[in-house]
Amino acid sequence: MRNLQGRLDLCSINTATLGHREPLNRTIDRIARVGFGGIAPWRREVEEGDLAQLARQIRALDLTVTGYCRSTYLPAATSAGFSANVEANRAALRDAAVLGARCFVMVAGGLVPGSRDLEGTRSQVVDGISMLLDTARECGVPLALEPLHPMYAASRAVVNTIAQAMRICETVDPDRSGFIGIAVDVYHCWWDPELTASIAAAGRAGRILAYHVCDWLQETGDMLLDRGMMGDGVIDLPAVRSCVERSGYDGMVETEIFSAQNWWQREPDEVLAICAERLQTVC
Amino acid sequence: MRNLQGRLDLCSINTATLGHREPLNRTIDRIARVGFGGIAPWRREVEEGDLAQLARQIRALDLTVTGYCRSTYLPAATSAGFSANVEANRAALRDAAVLGARCFVMVAGGLVPGSRDLEGTRSQVVDGISMLLDTARECGVPLALEPLHPMYAASRAVVNTIAQAMRICETVDPDRSGFIGIAVDVYHCWWDPELTASIAAAGRAGRILAYHVCDWLQETGDMLLDRGMMGDGVIDLPAVRSCVERSGYDGMVETEIFSAQNWWQREPDEVLAICAERLQTVC
Repeated sequence: MRNLQGRLDLCSINTATLGHREPLNRTIDRIARVGFGGIAPWRREVEEGDLAQLARQIRALDLTVTGYCRSTYLPAATSAGFSANVEANRAALRDAAVLGARCFVMVAGGLVPGSRDLEGTRSQVVDGISMLLDTARECGVPLALEPLHPMYAASRAVVNTIAQAMRICETVDPDRSGFIGIAVDVYHCWWDPELTASIAAAGRAGRILAYHVCDWLQETGDMLLDRGMMGDGVIDLPAVRSCVERSGYDGMVETEIFSAQNWWQREPDEVLAICAERLQTVC
Repeated sequence: MRNLQGRLDLCSINTATLGHREPLNRTIDRIARVGFGGIAPWRREVEEGDLAQLARQIRALDLTVTGYCRSTYLPAATSAGFSANVEANRAALRDAAVLGARCFVMVAGGLVPGSRDLEGTRSQVVDGISMLLDTARECGVPLALEPLHPMYAASRAVVNTIAQAMRICETVDPDRSGFIGIAVDVYHCWWDPELTASIAAAGRAGRILAYHVCDWLQETGDMLLDRGMMGDGVIDLPAVRSCVERSGYDGMVETEIFSAQNWWQREPDEVLAICAERLQTVC
């Protein structure tokens, strides 16, 4: 496993970690100033700013865009709605290309309100991803399917384990083109009894495109916005990263923390300093 | 699949559904009065009352005890603590026998505070269950290992999928003695991409000992106490029950709803009437 001590160049910050409280150009500067090697911005921030200008700023600071967050949810109640969702993702993929993003993070979407058809929704997701694969290839930006924790199956993503995401990748891209893979986020998968085997299989297939860290707090107060800083929770972070890197992953380690009551209340530079320290000591 | 219309004799009520607001003897009477065939009481209620008297009351009303809830969490930081947990479960198993319970519901327990050793904790659980199996046989009460939703992996149960529970059963009881199996609760497993296959495998092995229903609300506000009434959420309940019954399960359908802000605020008889209606129409 790589030693991250003194290697912030191997570390990236997902801008959600700072709570989206400032324009992206300020966030980019803050992240570069600490010495991080990468950034993962969100669409809402990019779309509020000047895409070309932001891309230039990121390049000038020599930051790697470890992922562009994130897809429009795919499932819809009507075929027109579904097509619109696919198109929105095509547009975002083109922006991801301008940013030079290493991947486009795909969060599948949950059940359409009123639906109980989990299997049908999962099929819709496979169809949508399949339709986006050509655009990903044209743009040169791989799709990184991110399995979300099962507690989000109804509301955010019907793709819930690495093994399930791998099956989707192998279905839509049996030739392993390099344009679809998986974003592994410890928050979503740390509990999985199949974790080691799933990561090994995904890595062997060259499918791990991103690796996200934060922590799971033993007493989690909110299902969405109460993630912990690395080291403050129960996840054996070195064990997971060791597994991911043994499988062949050599990309960056990206921090992504949603934390409305704690980290989003603190000064951005304080949060970044603590991320830097924890990335080097407990991840 | 069995038709539950007019068949409340096939249905059971887990007393948690009423919020533990009354002494158990009153709850037993209420449940019998509606015509339910079964009841699943909790230890705290039984231990506050007169065990032999409660057992007589349940028998006199011809109620089946579909499960006795629930185990003391097994994991502990010290071997003395672990032994004490095993002993507490042995005592509860003897009470389960007095009640004539069809199974003793085993919720494994989560990570010991301060620990990040998920694998070691899971091993401890296997050891504890293995130690309890003889007592279960002596008492004539099978252990029903209940996989809990992955969102409880830190705090309540390190057993999180039916497939994982099945592996534990097969490890500690390769001869399929009948004294260890699984409690399938839709709330915990509805999201599982392996659900159909896992239920089929567990059923084929004769391992499904209980089947619990409630619903998952699309907008769940609390990780523990915001379960929905059957029909109010996103779970395709007939699909899951059909799968469970096709696998060979012919036991009761037990309702278990934790709902601090909604159902626990209502009159017990109203809750039971709505359970009865929903069990017959949407499950």
